[in-house]
Amino acid sequence: MKLTEQQIKEIKDQQSQKNETKRVTVRELEDILYEAFPVLDHGFVRVVDYMGDDTSIVQSARVSYGKGTKQVSTDEGLIRYLMRHWHSTPFEMCEIKYHVKLPIFIARQWIRHRTANVNEYSARYSILDKEFYLPKAENLAAQSKSNRQGRGEILEGEKAKKVLNLLKNDAERTYQNYETMLNEKYDGSTIDKNSVGLARELARMNLTLNTYTQWYWKTDLLNLMNFLRLRADKHAQYEIRAYADIMLSTLKKWVPITYSAFIDYRVGGVELSSKGKIVIQKIINNQNISIESSGLSKREWNELMDTMELDDRKV
Amino acid sequence: MKLTEQQIKEIKDQQSQKNETKRVTVRELEDILYEAFPVLDHGFVRVVDYMGDDTSIVQSARVSYGKGTKQVSTDEGLIRYLMRHWHSTPFEMCEIKYHVKLPIFIARQWIRHRTANVNEYSARYSILDKEFYLPKAENLAAQSKSNRQGRGEILEGEKAKKVLNLLKNDAERTYQNYETMLNEKYDGSTIDKNSVGLARELARMNLTLNTYTQWYWKTDLLNLMNFLRLRADKHAQYEIRAYADIMLSTLKKWVPITYSAFIDYRVGGVELSSKGKIVIQKIINNQNISIESSGLSKREWNELMDTMELDDRKV
Amino acid sequence: MKLTEQQIKEIKDQQSQKNETKRVTVRELEDILYEAFPVLDHGFVRVVDYMGDDTSIVQSARVSYGKGTKQVSTDEGLIRYLMRHWHSTPFEMCEIKYHVKLPIFIARQWIRHRTANVNEYSARYSILDKEFYLPKAENLAAQSKSNRQGRGEILEGEKAKKVLNLLKNDAERTYQNYETMLNEKYDGSTIDKNSVGLARELARMNLTLNTYTQWYWKTDLLNLMNFLRLRADKHAQYEIRAYADIMLSTLKKWVPITYSAFIDYRVGGVELSSKGKIVIQKIINNQNISIESSGLSKREWNELMDTMELDDRKV
Amino acid sequence: MKLTEQQIKEIKDQQSQKNETKRVTVRELEDILYEAFPVLDHGFVRVVDYMGDDTSIVQSARVSYGKGTKQVSTDEGLIRYLMRHWHSTPFEMCEIKYHVKLPIFIARQWIRHRTANVNEYSARYSILDKEFYLPKAENLAAQSKSNRQGRGEILEGEKAKKVLNLLKNDAERTYQNYETMLNEKYDGSTIDKNSVGLARELARMNLTLNTYTQWYWKTDLLNLMNFLRLRADKHAQYEIRAYADIMLSTLKKWVPITYSAFIDYRVGGVELSSKGKIVIQKIINNQNISIESSGLSKREWNELMDTMELDDRKV
Repeated sequence: MKLTEQQIKEIKDQQSQKNETKRVTVRELEDILYEAFPVLDHGFVRVVDYMGDDTSIVQSARVSYGKGTKQVSTDEGLIRYLMRHWHSTPFEMCEIKYHVKLPIFIARQWIRHRTANVNEYSARYSILDKEFYLPKAENLAAQSKSNRQGRGEILEGEKAKKVLNLLKNDAERTYQNYETMLNEKYDGSTIDKNSVGLARELARMNLTLNTYTQWYWKTDLLNLMNFLRLRADKHAQYEIRAYADIMLSTLKKWVPITYSAFIDYRVGGVELSSKGKIVIQKIINNQNISIESSGLSKREWNELMDTMELDDRKV
Repeated sequence: MKLTEQQIKEIKDQQSQKNETKRVTVRELEDILYEAFPVLDHGFVRVVDYMGDDTSIVQSARVSYGKGTKQVSTDEGLIRYLMRHWHSTPFEMCEIKYHVKLPIFIARQWIRHRTANVNEYSARYSILDKEFYLPKAENLAAQSKSNRQGRGEILEGEKAKKVLNLLKNDAERTYQNYETMLNEKYDGSTIDKNSVGLARELARMNLTLNTYTQWYWKTDLLNLMNFLRLRADKHAQYEIRAYADIMLSTLKKWVPITYSAFIDYRVGGVELSSKGKIVIQKIINNQNISIESSGLSKREWNELMDTMELDDRKV
Repeated sequence: MKLTEQQIKEIKDQQSQKNETKRVTVRELEDILYEAFPVLDHGFVRVVDYMGDDTSIVQSARVSYGKGTKQVSTDEGLIRYLMRHWHSTPFEMCEIKYHVKLPIFIARQWIRHRTANVNEYSARYSILDKEFYLPKAENLAAQSKSNRQGRGEILEGEKAKKVLNLLKNDAERTYQNYETMLNEKYDGSTIDKNSVGLARELARMNLTLNTYTQWYWKTDLLNLMNFLRLRADKHAQYEIRAYADIMLSTLKKWVPITYSAFIDYRVGGVELSSKGKIVIQKIINNQNISIESSGLSKREWNELMDTMELDDRKV
Repeated sequence: MKLTEQQIKEIKDQQSQKNETKRVTVRELEDILYEAFPVLDHGFVRVVDYMGDDTSIVQSARVSYGKGTKQVSTDEGLIRYLMRHWHSTPFEMCEIKYHVKLPIFIARQWIRHRTANVNEYSARYSILDKEFYLPKAENLAAQSKSNRQGRGEILEGEKAKKVLNLLKNDAERTYQNYETMLNEKYDGSTIDKNSVGLARELARMNLTLNTYTQWYWKTDLLNLMNFLRLRADKHAQYEIRAYADIMLSTLKKWVPITYSAFIDYRVGGVELSSKGKIVIQKIINNQNISIESSGLSKREWNELMDTMELDDRKV
């Protein structure tokens, strides 16, 4: 990641602010506010604003339940209770805003989470930066054979090199032709003074999907956790997980109690179907159990053994 | 409005906070943060948190339009442009949270605005306060004869008195019976130690719709303006307008430039249909125009004359 | 439930339609289309329109996954896979619309599900029906002692009788006074020809929360399942569960494969936290385990034993 | 547009359905159901399902307003009234589902409309079709000089030719290298049996933004009109307008009364700010008016004259 001079100055200015407020503040999050955490080769994630903290969740839960919440004596107990029982609205009372720079094909995955506010850099108005994502060798993996949407083994030396060359050359050439069509370089200089350039809204179609874009993305805590649960998961594509991992660390700084409950109940939690639960109960009670009698498909059975880390042969 | 001792203390505690933050802050809004503004006889509105200010809108618009926004030189010019052309997403980048106490029948109107986060006091868990809305005499109006959902003349002395008596007695009696069924007074004392009370989730059904409830209500600036446009309008029911009016004044403190554009383009703005526009153009050009030739219905014609404050006979 | 003559005629007219369409249709659901299923004493639920069926889910999933979905050979296998792995968007491709008559205090619970379209009968415009919910004796329960939002034992004879009398008398009197204030009976007749009535938008505030209202409620299949998961659950208030149970039976007729997966994975499924999972694993492997070493609170431990139907003493 | 054999067969099968239903049906829309209307060079729009018609809007409005709606005697009058006064919820009672094939850079504009359900073809699972958008010569325009996001003059012969060559060559080469990296041709054949291919989720990043994708897109009538108002507007990018125009024609077939009101009040309607309204009033009353005294900026003034088609010099 290489920030522009202007960006460095802007971040410095933002970070030097010392405003007084009666709102709740979170020291740990303030410490990293506005900071650009590098992701992938040219991307970043920055927290640029937030509203509320762990106590805001408790505050709104207590307005809902009134005196009823006195039974749960501590804030932590209450937050864990809310998380365990999928209470959702108290977690919507906190809000966070990120500034993210990311490759377009990842932006397209990300935007599927609709309950968020987004302002993206517009290539109808302006020229996109000359930056494209090129994976590191260790992230260049073959198509998985077992999983249609997964990765398998890492590509070997020559193969990896070839792929990287193709990606690099194609991105550079298409970008160069983008400039040619625009009759303008990305630094703003005109190529041919006697000519006109193609409209930006058209020229952009020549760019490859690994070109970087950026946006402001704002969401509430509940929907942030929904996003992170899916995108920080091991089944998520590595490139979006790289963003989600950084965001997880900002979640921890922001709302540490909620983070801990989230890790325990959502990220580390598992689900059993009604049939799967009966299988586990029978195992505990040393009753006979087999795939056939369980009513599970082979695939479901394997997923169950996998989830509970059970040795299939033992059963 | 009479706050409880506990509420007074809580507000005082909240207002005495002096936290340091790198986030943008709004002095005018900080000055009234947490303060309970009275609405109707027992209700209130309090701003309890916020995120962003006028510059946040500009910041996100500029990330969208990149260098393209340099043409509009000032923040005010840009915000007015965004408002005029119904750009929506930059206004979603600001967020505000209110604590509101309001009669249930008004809460039912309010909740129809779905794009917001809500935590309401739960009468399944807890006992509702012994407070009901009783209109002031000047707000007791007869059913409008011309408008199915409006109010007409103010009720006269004896009639108003009778209505107020009915409302007061019914609210008090149903609340008293609510306590009887619960076997518990609203102060928490038990009525008959040797008896059990009806479940709260059932007993509440005996309360009248003017009983007060309360909630935390959080929304973004765009949806707040959508709410205020409808609910601060003269066609809105007086009781919800009373809340919207206070909220308008907090909007002005929070984002003064946006507020001013909102008043000019939304609140004070008018719309013409394609046929209505032709009528106005013909009037300007001194061409013949009549209801018949306009293609407008009598109702639409009247609405148009009303909107443009034109003397029908002059046309 | 007693339908008006007009409603009976309307339903009969709707049911006698025989239209030809190229859209997918569901015979089982067509058979009960428009039919008013009674709920509580005066309420009902009717399916009044729908879009799509089980194959629509498969169709959209296959457009997403392209050739990739060929591996899962059957529609049932694919739908179960989607449900198990919380894929959400394919289930959003089906839509259903209900017409519901329900008590206002239940409508207030229901409306908290925001991702739906609603048109409710407006008491600003029109006079509400003279119908209020009065529970059957077997549903009149005392406040639960262990659960702040639950019910305990059924009320005994005299106590129940007293409660019912209070509810009945208060509802009738407040409704009568509503008519008095309106100067209009619910049958439309004027009470005093020489007087004017209070505006409807005001008079309604005198009604109790068990007064019936009605609405059209439209949602997609995903959000319908989210609603049913919460509201057909044993922890839901009986009165809303009564509606959810009927709706569950319409779900079964509409999308039988999805229904079956929903029952298995959502309704009958259970969740284990990361700590809870370790407890279960230790039990299976006959390792020592105790509340203390588990890291669970007493409450969480009990919930876990309860969920897995394990005998605490055995552990 | 060239449909695959499989697509042609599927459409034929779908169109040959003759199902009986009690739901409302729309003959005009049934006639074109499933039909693929060509858009741009390889795209299409198909209506694949719908729920409701003009009468559904009326039906839900009447449940809201009860007897109050009897005043507006006709369905058309009621729908026009609802549209004129921005009543939104009755229009949400109708739903429509499209199958769309479109270039990725247009899909990225489209997806900004969040209140819709989407299932897009996944390039993580499957290989994208070898089809890219290449504009016709008459749509190759220069960057507008006055409007940062608009198009100016059409490019002349040689210039246009050069642009088209660049677009074509870059799309073909990046697609070819996509196949090389995948070690698989788009027809499914393997390139080198002794080698493995790059994971699909990675290889896709090499494609250009004019590559075609496809999705199912489902929304309610209100949000469809919001989409069309923006995207069928002359300020919208030509390529998305081409889709919106076809969709407008399906809207007309589906709900002709609503369509007509939509055209009159939304598409052809204009807005005046409070200051702009005063300017128009003064013009009508032959009062002196100038930019300076109007309080409008030069830009706003010009927009007002433009909107009302007034000759600036006349004023």
